[in-house]
Amino acid sequence: MSDMPATPLLDTVDTPADLRTLKPAELRQLADELRQETISAVGSTGGHLGSGLGVVELTVAIHYVFNTPDDKLVWDVGHQCYPHKILTGRRSRIRTLRQGGGLSGFTKRSESEYDPFGAAHSSTSISAALGFAIANKLSDKPGKGIAVIGDGSMSAGMAYEAMNNAEAAGNRLVVILNDNDMSIAPPVGGLSAYLARMVSSSEYLGLREFAKKTIRKLSKRAHNAAAKAEEYARGMATGGTLFEELGFYYVGPIDGHNLEHLIPVLENVRDSEHGPILVHVVTKKGKGYAPAEAAADKYHGVQKFDVITGAQDKAPPGPPSYQNVFGETLAKLAETDARIVAITAAMPSGTGVDKFAQKHPERAFDVGIAEQHAVTFAAGLAAQGMRPFCAIYSTFLQRAYDQVVHDVAIQNLPVRFAIDRAGLVGADGATHAGSFDVTYLATLPNFVVMAAADEAELAHMTYTAAEHDSGPIAVRYPRGNGTGVPLPAVPQKLEIGKGRVVREGKTVAILSLGTRLGEALKAADALEAKGLSTTVADLRFAKPLDEALIRRLLTTHEVAVSVEEGAIGGLGAHVLTLASDEGLIDAGLKLRTMRLPDTFQDQDSPQKQYDEAGLNAEHIVDTVLKALRWNEASATGGGARA
Amino acid sequence: MSDMPATPLLDTVDTPADLRTLKPAELRQLADELRQETISAVGSTGGHLGSGLGVVELTVAIHYVFNTPDDKLVWDVGHQCYPHKILTGRRSRIRTLRQGGGLSGFTKRSESEYDPFGAAHSSTSISAALGFAIANKLSDKPGKGIAVIGDGSMSAGMAYEAMNNAEAAGNRLVVILNDNDMSIAPPVGGLSAYLARMVSSSEYLGLREFAKKTIRKLSKRAHNAAAKAEEYARGMATGGTLFEELGFYYVGPIDGHNLEHLIPVLENVRDSEHGPILVHVVTKKGKGYAPAEAAADKYHGVQKFDVITGAQDKAPPGPPSYQNVFGETLAKLAETDARIVAITAAMPSGTGVDKFAQKHPERAFDVGIAEQHAVTFAAGLAAQGMRPFCAIYSTFLQRAYDQVVHDVAIQNLPVRFAIDRAGLVGADGATHAGSFDVTYLATLPNFVVMAAADEAELAHMTYTAAEHDSGPIAVRYPRGNGTGVPLPAVPQKLEIGKGRVVREGKTVAILSLGTRLGEALKAADALEAKGLSTTVADLRFAKPLDEALIRRLLTTHEVAVSVEEGAIGGLGAHVLTLASDEGLIDAGLKLRTMRLPDTFQDQDSPQKQYDEAGLNAEHIVDTVLKALRWNEASATGGGARA
Repeated sequence: MSDMPATPLLDTVDTPADLRTLKPAELRQLADELRQETISAVGSTGGHLGSGLGVVELTVAIHYVFNTPDDKLVWDVGHQCYPHKILTGRRSRIRTLRQGGGLSGFTKRSESEYDPFGAAHSSTSISAALGFAIANKLSDKPGKGIAVIGDGSMSAGMAYEAMNNAEAAGNRLVVILNDNDMSIAPPVGGLSAYLARMVSSSEYLGLREFAKKTIRKLSKRAHNAAAKAEEYARGMATGGTLFEELGFYYVGPIDGHNLEHLIPVLENVRDSEHGPILVHVVTKKGKGYAPAEAAADKYHGVQKFDVITGAQDKAPPGPPSYQNVFGETLAKLAETDARIVAITAAMPSGTGVDKFAQKHPERAFDVGIAEQHAVTFAAGLAAQGMRPFCAIYSTFLQRAYDQVVHDVAIQNLPVRFAIDRAGLVGADGATHAGSFDVTYLATLPNFVVMAAADEAELAHMTYTAAEHDSGPIAVRYPRGNGTGVPLPAVPQKLEIGKGRVVREGKTVAILSLGTRLGEALKAADALEAKGLSTTVADLRFAKPLDEALIRRLLTTHEVAVSVEEGAIGGLGAHVLTLASDEGLIDAGLKLRTMRLPDTFQDQDSPQKQYDEAGLNAEHIVDTVLKALRWNEASATGGGARA
Repeated sequence: MSDMPATPLLDTVDTPADLRTLKPAELRQLADELRQETISAVGSTGGHLGSGLGVVELTVAIHYVFNTPDDKLVWDVGHQCYPHKILTGRRSRIRTLRQGGGLSGFTKRSESEYDPFGAAHSSTSISAALGFAIANKLSDKPGKGIAVIGDGSMSAGMAYEAMNNAEAAGNRLVVILNDNDMSIAPPVGGLSAYLARMVSSSEYLGLREFAKKTIRKLSKRAHNAAAKAEEYARGMATGGTLFEELGFYYVGPIDGHNLEHLIPVLENVRDSEHGPILVHVVTKKGKGYAPAEAAADKYHGVQKFDVITGAQDKAPPGPPSYQNVFGETLAKLAETDARIVAITAAMPSGTGVDKFAQKHPERAFDVGIAEQHAVTFAAGLAAQGMRPFCAIYSTFLQRAYDQVVHDVAIQNLPVRFAIDRAGLVGADGATHAGSFDVTYLATLPNFVVMAAADEAELAHMTYTAAEHDSGPIAVRYPRGNGTGVPLPAVPQKLEIGKGRVVREGKTVAILSLGTRLGEALKAADALEAKGLSTTVADLRFAKPLDEALIRRLLTTHEVAVSVEEGAIGGLGAHVLTLASDEGLIDAGLKLRTMRLPDTFQDQDSPQKQYDEAGLNAEHIVDTVLKALRWNEASATGGGARA
């Protein structure tokens, strides 16, 4: 390809073993080539760019100094791992990133022995690295656990839990804090401010004993430097850090782009008898690529782009995204409802809460990567009469499941959950799929669980949730753009537990929950073409079920099929349980449930993922026909069923 | 009652408003009477004692100084709330604690306006109090949020997440750290060591500006004082604390039993323009009751006891508890299997991990209240070839759901989950019930989910889990004692996904999962007495289902009933889904699923809870007969069914 960079030195490096044959003086060139290769690859595939560019030198230095794969390197979140993949035997496949059958956009155990632990959700790396360290210690095997974790990921409770338990690992554990002062959105919270103070306290380093000959004074990066002068003075005098208080030896801050500093410091860390050690490395997200450095989000996640100009492929114009419909609807509602509050856990743009925050900054809360706190904070707000919306991706709400159960559901507090990225998510793959929310929420007493069939429904359901003060309520909706239906000028308040019949027929009933409704309608057309009169209902509620509607559909149609974009235990299970409880199955009932398969689906295009899941119109038709034991021959013979 | 203490001053106090009419000099006597009343009440009911005794003075001081209930007081965990309940209008019912229809053993919103937020799981209080504080701030209402949280609860990530977000509350938020150096088990981790250093650094206090005239120097309580001298020196020199680094004003440590210190300090805190403030209070668990102070667990949770001697009612001799069968079985297996590791999250005794730790201390890990870390740490251990067992109560495993999904299930790592307290739990009520684990685990691809029908089965399943290296596996079992079956000398390795037929019949099939098996067998006897030949199967596995066995039972019996001690979405849903997927319901199938009701059940005796849930033998019989439309008249007439 014409835009492939010249990478003569990188071409000689297939694995870290090759890397370690280079001379230290060659590493700068290698890093430069690795950066160019990363930019080129992501330019052709899209994906996460800024994070990887920020750790190019760190990636080189770690693999150069440590004995990977025996030393177990765990990248937190994993979206910064593209340079790592290039250096660990996967360069030939790097332009398949995030595509069906290609490399994952995150670390993945099945891909390489250099990926000892997969990730995609944040803040797991210290716990996992500690597991490797302790396992090796118990088994008298060589090998450290090395976690590389961003400052944003440090805001999550589980990182703190892990640090609080790290002492037992001794020098088997190394935590590299990659402080780029920016995870996806600008940082929030006390820890972030603390790190900024540490970094901006340039005198501070002079007091450090460890590795002090190898680290340089950083130039000032002060945040509110004047106002924080007192704190700096204190920090300078003591040398004590939050990390030391939790039992770590602290080294840093050091410049994460200067290999002449990184290499000797990491060598000292590697050879230290003491531990655990935390190395505080300061990096710049998007480093070395001007368009990324200049962008507000540092090219966190990008479309394919032109490497020269940085211009990203634009998505074709289309319906608004679900996240923005949610954010804008909520912002509108909040104009006349002072009780509405929106909470996001470090995803203001991804959840549409940024749209709300523009209009109502005092009522928008970005709590950082802290879903547990987000939910119980919302419960406290609800207990005091506010109308809080927790806008959290389905997969990340798993982080707060106990808070959902214990603080919200048991107390029957009206916390509203706006559950984005419900269902399959395409290129992000299994770790980001929102497959389980209907199951894990609808099993809880007191909960109302809705799923939006399109963006107009989402607007209605957002309003319905705002008005629902008698207990917890959730609305789930998918990643991506709406279906193009007109948005309501004024959202309607839906009746809780009532579905709607979208199309009335006689023989087949399709009970749809959520955005598979479009496929259900397509299936209905196909079934009608075969002479099978088809009803399509949008149940809207997985809990409480519209029992009257379901009872009617099951008893007046020859076959019924439920369709949902969720795993077993959700809508289909609840419909079956109703049919069993009421004895509707006793006399014979052709009822089938279509759901996500019992596998974790790898990344692919959404259409292929739905095909793999068997949730497209053709699959619905097939399920109906099989249940009816229908075949063309018998249909031709006059009867619909064999 | 003869053992009711004389409480002349307490008798004049029904609510905090009464308390506030007292003179400061009277508070010592009030606290003494409150302590005696607490001891007397718990002596007659059993329950949590040590925690409440430790906060008697703190309870008095908070209600005296702050304007409850407008100031929202949130007790973390809530097991220390008995003195609080006595002072807030519930003294007349205090001897109904933890009994059916009585007061909850925890805070509960429905009980009192002085319980603005319920708890029972730890570490939620700061998030909730922050919610109250922000709600009032946004609404221009008076009232602070006040969280009282133990040092043990501070080890959980969500407490850290909340502290990291607290700054926005300003002086609306007060966090009182109740440092008794002991939650349920002795403390673990870096934070605990840090707090001990702070407390033991007696000179440190002299440097504090805030409230320095009102606090006294504590006597030395040093842990490893000599070894930590360097750290003390540092702490003394700086005045900076971990809490200040996260954005709090720090006050303390102060003696939590000295009202002459507590009252003025809290008054200063109340009136401060600055905030948020963390008040570090040092208390003694079990304070003022010699038998509690002398006990290793400080009478954390007790049976009814004699107030004079402290002698607790002994449970009648009986079968071993499930937790101990688990712990001892695992300890035995570990004698010949060096890969077995046990992990508990601050529940060494409650989970039986203490039995393991006695034999294999180097392979037992108490990570503190840190379930998220526990699970991902285990995943790291498993990825490096160990055989980790995470022993966590069902309800607390909810805290680690995302780690179970993301780190264990998606990576298909063989982490073993020993899930204690599955199902109903009696006196601890809804917050501790393990109702959802089968649903939230069996929906996950790759997972094996077992339930033990008795303690021998638990031994087999523990061994089966140890030997299962191909993916995650869980065994659930209830609170309390086994059924008295003999324990196997050598546990068997069960075939994954295979149930067993305990009793073979022809007409009725009962599909049992877990310890309702005894009731299923009783029901079978009753059904046989009515002429209904009954099969009872112990399915053992909720996932994978024993499809062949279920298919056979459903197709060869006239009625089938599944029985489980779990909420909707679990075994019954999976059996129904199988029956639907395979078309077994098409021609008519009398299949019913018995499960926990769609409510959160309050505390009561286990028997009454099962009655309320409808999961005793009589309910099984009733369900079968209703499904058969059976009545005595028709049976007499010769046919079993109407």
